[in-house]
Amino acid sequence: MGYRLAGRKAKEEKTVIRVGNTVVGGDHLTIIAGPCAVENRDRYIQAASQLKKMGVQMLRGGAFKPRTSPYAFQGLAVEGLEILAEAKRVTGLPIVTEVMDTRDVDKVAGFADVLQIGSRNMQNFILLKEVGRVNKPVLLKRGLSATIEEWLMAAEYIMAEGNSQIIMCERGIRTFETHTRNTLDISAVPAIKHLSHLPVIVDPSHAAGKWGMVAPLAKASIAAGADGLLIEVHPCPEEALCDGGQSLTPGNFAELMEEIIPVAEAVGRKCHDKVKLLVKKSVI
Amino acid sequence: MGYRLAGRKAKEEKTVIRVGNTVVGGDHLTIIAGPCAVENRDRYIQAASQLKKMGVQMLRGGAFKPRTSPYAFQGLAVEGLEILAEAKRVTGLPIVTEVMDTRDVDKVAGFADVLQIGSRNMQNFILLKEVGRVNKPVLLKRGLSATIEEWLMAAEYIMAEGNSQIIMCERGIRTFETHTRNTLDISAVPAIKHLSHLPVIVDPSHAAGKWGMVAPLAKASIAAGADGLLIEVHPCPEEALCDGGQSLTPGNFAELMEEIIPVAEAVGRKCHDKVKLLVKKSVI
Amino acid sequence: MGYRLAGRKAKEEKTVIRVGNTVVGGDHLTIIAGPCAVENRDRYIQAASQLKKMGVQMLRGGAFKPRTSPYAFQGLAVEGLEILAEAKRVTGLPIVTEVMDTRDVDKVAGFADVLQIGSRNMQNFILLKEVGRVNKPVLLKRGLSATIEEWLMAAEYIMAEGNSQIIMCERGIRTFETHTRNTLDISAVPAIKHLSHLPVIVDPSHAAGKWGMVAPLAKASIAAGADGLLIEVHPCPEEALCDGGQSLTPGNFAELMEEIIPVAEAVGRKCHDKVKLLVKKSVI
Amino acid sequence: MGYRLAGRKAKEEKTVIRVGNTVVGGDHLTIIAGPCAVENRDRYIQAASQLKKMGVQMLRGGAFKPRTSPYAFQGLAVEGLEILAEAKRVTGLPIVTEVMDTRDVDKVAGFADVLQIGSRNMQNFILLKEVGRVNKPVLLKRGLSATIEEWLMAAEYIMAEGNSQIIMCERGIRTFETHTRNTLDISAVPAIKHLSHLPVIVDPSHAAGKWGMVAPLAKASIAAGADGLLIEVHPCPEEALCDGGQSLTPGNFAELMEEIIPVAEAVGRKCHDKVKLLVKKSVI
Repeated sequence: MGYRLAGRKAKEEKTVIRVGNTVVGGDHLTIIAGPCAVENRDRYIQAASQLKKMGVQMLRGGAFKPRTSPYAFQGLAVEGLEILAEAKRVTGLPIVTEVMDTRDVDKVAGFADVLQIGSRNMQNFILLKEVGRVNKPVLLKRGLSATIEEWLMAAEYIMAEGNSQIIMCERGIRTFETHTRNTLDISAVPAIKHLSHLPVIVDPSHAAGKWGMVAPLAKASIAAGADGLLIEVHPCPEEALCDGGQSLTPGNFAELMEEIIPVAEAVGRKCHDKVKLLVKKSVI
Repeated sequence: MGYRLAGRKAKEEKTVIRVGNTVVGGDHLTIIAGPCAVENRDRYIQAASQLKKMGVQMLRGGAFKPRTSPYAFQGLAVEGLEILAEAKRVTGLPIVTEVMDTRDVDKVAGFADVLQIGSRNMQNFILLKEVGRVNKPVLLKRGLSATIEEWLMAAEYIMAEGNSQIIMCERGIRTFETHTRNTLDISAVPAIKHLSHLPVIVDPSHAAGKWGMVAPLAKASIAAGADGLLIEVHPCPEEALCDGGQSLTPGNFAELMEEIIPVAEAVGRKCHDKVKLLVKKSVI
Repeated sequence: MGYRLAGRKAKEEKTVIRVGNTVVGGDHLTIIAGPCAVENRDRYIQAASQLKKMGVQMLRGGAFKPRTSPYAFQGLAVEGLEILAEAKRVTGLPIVTEVMDTRDVDKVAGFADVLQIGSRNMQNFILLKEVGRVNKPVLLKRGLSATIEEWLMAAEYIMAEGNSQIIMCERGIRTFETHTRNTLDISAVPAIKHLSHLPVIVDPSHAAGKWGMVAPLAKASIAAGADGLLIEVHPCPEEALCDGGQSLTPGNFAELMEEIIPVAEAVGRKCHDKVKLLVKKSVI
Repeated sequence: MGYRLAGRKAKEEKTVIRVGNTVVGGDHLTIIAGPCAVENRDRYIQAASQLKKMGVQMLRGGAFKPRTSPYAFQGLAVEGLEILAEAKRVTGLPIVTEVMDTRDVDKVAGFADVLQIGSRNMQNFILLKEVGRVNKPVLLKRGLSATIEEWLMAAEYIMAEGNSQIIMCERGIRTFETHTRNTLDISAVPAIKHLSHLPVIVDPSHAAGKWGMVAPLAKASIAAGADGLLIEVHPCPEEALCDGGQSLTPGNFAELMEEIIPVAEAVGRKCHDKVKLLVKKSVI
């Protein structure tokens, strides 16, 4: 079939997506961070403010959570969206949050700056078509066992409806290895760059499933050419309602930010000025 | 978490699901057959009548088709549902068809006797909840890379909403092997029997992706304890708009029906009387 | 490259391999059973005698054991071979045992009737060449993540050296699923039948890793067309030095033998007369 | 069982392995390069001299080649070893070459500075024990579908025989993805660093199977903490007898060397002085 819209042949220049005051793509490095789920107003607002000071350009947080068990915490729903909106007002940072239900697309789009399609919904074609009709950037996570071709075809579904602001997000694939939660397919970064004009970022937190691996995988992702990172940070990982084991503390995250700057510069990426400034000033 | 509703401990006797004049589960063997997609009224009605004569107990056919590419045939939608309804009137056989969109659940339930949740939607939790609210049996296909635990948890999502008429359907998992389209995980049959009271059937057509393998895999499935089969049969596979390569012709299917009877009897399964009768009379 | 010697085009009739008084291939069903490892003389001889009474046609047992850890039981080596030889004298049954070291091939061939190449050595090309020079049947287990093509190419390595008495043995492949030790690739049975003239048997014990699943998988294998089974039976599984969890007790094995006869007959397989006789007489 | 010898608890300081005038481990970055197979004397010597000028610290090249098909080029054997020896005399660089046959271990050790155990032999325990008895560093490639635990246990086999000079080498694992030859498991680098004191390098050439992906994967590997790289370079990839598609030309390799230096420095790795000097002088 070919990638009529997502393919390199469809568009010569690389797609750069504007989100609030920042961009994804080009030679920028975009850092998106936050807790897996929005669990509690005060804690989220506090975390968001901290992350802003550390140079994070977008906030993440799930209001609707796809969980394997129906008995696990499913997210705060609308209350979670409202907390995200408040975090945006307080920090000025754009919000990335997942939408799971076609009927919620407009509502979530009213709060979010970037709509996230989660791994489990990567081939929920109805939902892809629906976010394709909205004028908001979409962060499209790769499915647990999606091939690169299927992933780009999922982008194609969104683009075929008219929305071409797509950020591809590699988050690890399912393999036989059990040491990590998933296997980060680092080759997906150069593969997407080769096949498509769309930007691609990496979520090392879900890939590893272990916070201690996030830093080396984050640096590897940048060195491989990723346009950004999606990192789980939680003020108190051991109390997290989901994915605590893979969340960095704000302190770990600050260290990571310091470590990634020289790697980003080594591969010609421009870091957000604030980040470099903050690092110099030892604010973080 | 445990399988509060789908687990063996939740219910001592095996679940037997009544669909029209037939049942799924217990010691019955249920054969569901038909083309992958409803493509054409005359052809579908003709195929349905043929399949009925061969002893098929339920008809399958997709009106809404989840396809990797947005440019591939997406199904006839409502027109397809109407053709299925006509096939039901003509043959008296119940209809199994896929629902992909939460907003279509009531509409599809108005036509179908069994709602199919496809592999790609196995963790579309919104859709699972929605079919959980309907009083219709659900055929729950295993996801391409879903573990048995995740698959049972998907059933749990449906049951938690009140619908416990679930038919589990193994259809092959994604592995490194490329000789087959997917790898039929035959062990899933005894695994589901061990962990749950729900019936489990097998779709050897999607697993193999090659019509020549359907017969041995169908027999293996019955021998492993499957409660039924979901088989793709197309009057003219080489003209099929999807999955022609894995479809049996009506002639191949008739041979298969003859071959499976002794295997079913060898493991204590009751075949539909008509099937045995027809085989004796050489009607098929 | 093609399968110059192992391929269907290379030889029209199916290969039938004579081993002692029995055969593998054609329309026979060959049952090979025994403990994973030879652990103890008395116990092995006793088990062998029991298995003979139940109609087993060949005995298995490892004298050299490939173990993930160097600190795990590595087999009794030559002492194990001598016990196997004694079991053969006592029962008259041929012996299948693994050879791991090229330098041991002649020695093992002096004791064994069939040389087993284990999964981890399926692409130990030096060893394949070495058993290719011996005039003994080879049982070639599929590698943990070998494609069907690579597996047949491994057979081709043996055949290219002059030995064409090869019994292919499917034993499960490595996938993401953790409910079973490996995923039995039942499709490999019809695939080998389609691509090659060589006989193919199944080892459901290693595939499942759980004794409770051995019976359904054994029946499925026969229904899919397998020429035989390789089953782990241990007089006292909970005391086994390796793989106890997947071993049947002699009692479970006797039940299995009863159950497989009707399935074998349903697909046109001839069971060893003794088996049927014993079952009738309720000796087992 | 635990990693009695290979584990972090067994030895506090990181293992640094001396090979000729260079080392693997510590804060050094070791670059090993060369063609997949030694095919031709003049070409190999010429390539070796070029690679030396570009700052390569060790030469690779296979004299014994494990090939899927018995009809594919199997290597020049002893003649290949002699060419490697000549290359060593000419360049002064140490040689890494694969040993496949237990009976060849002493012979290969007579020529090579580092004995390579290939992926297919990672659980050839006999061969592991044999190289464990030799006083030469061993480059232990991860098996195609080996877990990290199994891989470290393979190192444990070698160490248990007395040889603790082991260089772990990640080279991609087998998954469902077909865009790349294998899936580079970049997480294996921090995993080995976390679990063991042994050095770990990466072979991006075999992982990707595509030369265009080697550079981003090489940089990612260094950023993730790898102690070195194993890169395929061929003077004329399109004429290579094996793996041409994944080989860099000397020109591509020179570019790669320039690109990796800033990444290596960004993560605190010391590059070989010559490399930096050569890059400054634009010799490469």
